[in-house]
Amino acid sequence: VTSEFEREIAEQPAVIAGLIARREEVEHLAAALVAAAPRFLVIAARGSSDNAARYAVYLFGAKNRLAVALAAPSLTTLYEASPSMVGGALLGVSQSGQSPDVVAVLADARAQGALTIAVTNDAGSPLAVAAEHALGLGVGVERAVAASKTYTGQLVALAMLSAAMAGDRERWRELEALPDAVAGVVAGLGDARAAAAALVGAGHLPVLARGFNRATAFEAALKLKETAYLAAEASSWVDFLHGPIAMLGPGAPALVIAPSGRADGDADGILDRLVAAAARPIVISDRPALLARGAAALRLPIVPEWLSPVTAAVAAQQLALAAAEARGLDPDRPRGLSKITRTR
Amino acid sequence: VTSEFEREIAEQPAVIAGLIARREEVEHLAAALVAAAPRFLVIAARGSSDNAARYAVYLFGAKNRLAVALAAPSLTTLYEASPSMVGGALLGVSQSGQSPDVVAVLADARAQGALTIAVTNDAGSPLAVAAEHALGLGVGVERAVAASKTYTGQLVALAMLSAAMAGDRERWRELEALPDAVAGVVAGLGDARAAAAALVGAGHLPVLARGFNRATAFEAALKLKETAYLAAEASSWVDFLHGPIAMLGPGAPALVIAPSGRADGDADGILDRLVAAAARPIVISDRPALLARGAAALRLPIVPEWLSPVTAAVAAQQLALAAAEARGLDPDRPRGLSKITRTR
Repeated sequence: VTSEFEREIAEQPAVIAGLIARREEVEHLAAALVAAAPRFLVIAARGSSDNAARYAVYLFGAKNRLAVALAAPSLTTLYEASPSMVGGALLGVSQSGQSPDVVAVLADARAQGALTIAVTNDAGSPLAVAAEHALGLGVGVERAVAASKTYTGQLVALAMLSAAMAGDRERWRELEALPDAVAGVVAGLGDARAAAAALVGAGHLPVLARGFNRATAFEAALKLKETAYLAAEASSWVDFLHGPIAMLGPGAPALVIAPSGRADGDADGILDRLVAAAARPIVISDRPALLARGAAALRLPIVPEWLSPVTAAVAAQQLALAAAEARGLDPDRPRGLSKITRTR
Repeated sequence: VTSEFEREIAEQPAVIAGLIARREEVEHLAAALVAAAPRFLVIAARGSSDNAARYAVYLFGAKNRLAVALAAPSLTTLYEASPSMVGGALLGVSQSGQSPDVVAVLADARAQGALTIAVTNDAGSPLAVAAEHALGLGVGVERAVAASKTYTGQLVALAMLSAAMAGDRERWRELEALPDAVAGVVAGLGDARAAAAALVGAGHLPVLARGFNRATAFEAALKLKETAYLAAEASSWVDFLHGPIAMLGPGAPALVIAPSGRADGDADGILDRLVAAAARPIVISDRPALLARGAAALRLPIVPEWLSPVTAAVAAQQLALAAAEARGLDPDRPRGLSKITRTR
């Protein structure tokens, strides 16, 4: 182990198991949310946490039939004209709980009378204090600037909240199997190192996914930018076909994140397009047929689609770690970044 | 004039004036929306239209206090589990009105009993037919693959709808002055050509803005990718400081889109950070002090902040056109793209 980032990636199976054991606490929170019967959910977040919010759009949309809006914090902090929260509930998601703009959006929603929940790793943080309800992740201190266990912790906390709101026992069983699956990904660091060789001299890197794993594409791109200084850019592959595919020249790499699920047919289609463009795809998936079509591949264990953003995110963290190593960079200390960004 | 893209960019003052003249029609639509009294708005869109939807988040948020969620079409098309639209209204935005996934989201919302409005350039398109109410932009056929007048037409249609919902006469006066301001931008193509020289050999290009013009950053990046094959990547400059700034090496270009408004102080701050990182900023603004700090600059006329995404988008189109020309590319025929993308 050569970096904090690598160490924290490896902690995730234990950290996720610890979080899942706190089912009762989350069920209590979920009961309050169900009692408030919101028509829509607004999520305030920045950086990696914003990617957790992207997951929440699909999670609460598909599993709880709730429309989710991502807050535009500047409406509150710059324009002093926040949208009405009548009929809505607000989740503030922040690793540190320190982002003043996320705190401002949550405090404003609470002042409007909406139910507010903070999801943060620091139960004593301003965000947790400002919220009516707070869920501390309890994943321990994160030392690397690039988030790993706080990100997957947020995903798991949101997944638990969704399962608890629906009172769905089957989904709790699926959650309980997750730590072992994550351990399986952690064991695959060698594959990530092999795949990273393709990224040593890379310029632009499209990072493509769809549905539940659109969030993973954004998180993977952020990690690759932060730690390996790669010009990685996330999009739904649908949006990619709407324009950015024009940029893809022969031999260009592209990262495809496609755990099995409802988007399988689509994933096959995007591989066809990439192969037709003579691009060099790196594939993160549990599907052997898809992995075989990649110039490089990171194999995931099979988990239900709604939880696959957790396992896929861990594989993406490993790829970012390996790409930083391969490019001779220190993954713990990205240029010009600090752990907490204070923006208003 | 050497391309359809250039011709269509230049048509925008007239096209926008034509749209603004249809005030009564939009007021009729707005009355229906006000009568439905939605708690939240969902917007379904793809590609350039999705950037118009990003504008709508700030527009309806700040000016009508309405929370806006961007639809995740795959919830409807892949997961067959659309969020509940009780208490909500849906806007489908599509230049062609052909995108099957946008049509599916709108049809589903209408089946759920929500008010639905189609904003499209083709009043006979499947989207317009599926919606309870339709607003045809009437901006004429767009021949270049890269959207120009259909994008600004969408922005203006949304701006009219917002002003009409609020019954705000002052904002109508501001709208009426917009075509002249756009004509001023069209006349500045020479500045765009001078600025584009800095992009001839560029690799990655961060495109930064905040608030109302976050949408413009995404639209500018999309145009630069489609027409000039530049690896342009949009973000709020707040999110940029949360991670991607790590990638910025000395001499790297960055496009800053900052018309005057509530984000002025912030814009000064991001210029400080770019200069400190020895980056080479290209600035699109109406503020002389900010323009003077750019390695290159595109000067905008002064318009109210809520309308500045229209003038700034036109400047960005000109930069994309000029960058394509400078790089020896045909801006009308991007590699691998067709005008209508049919995704499910």
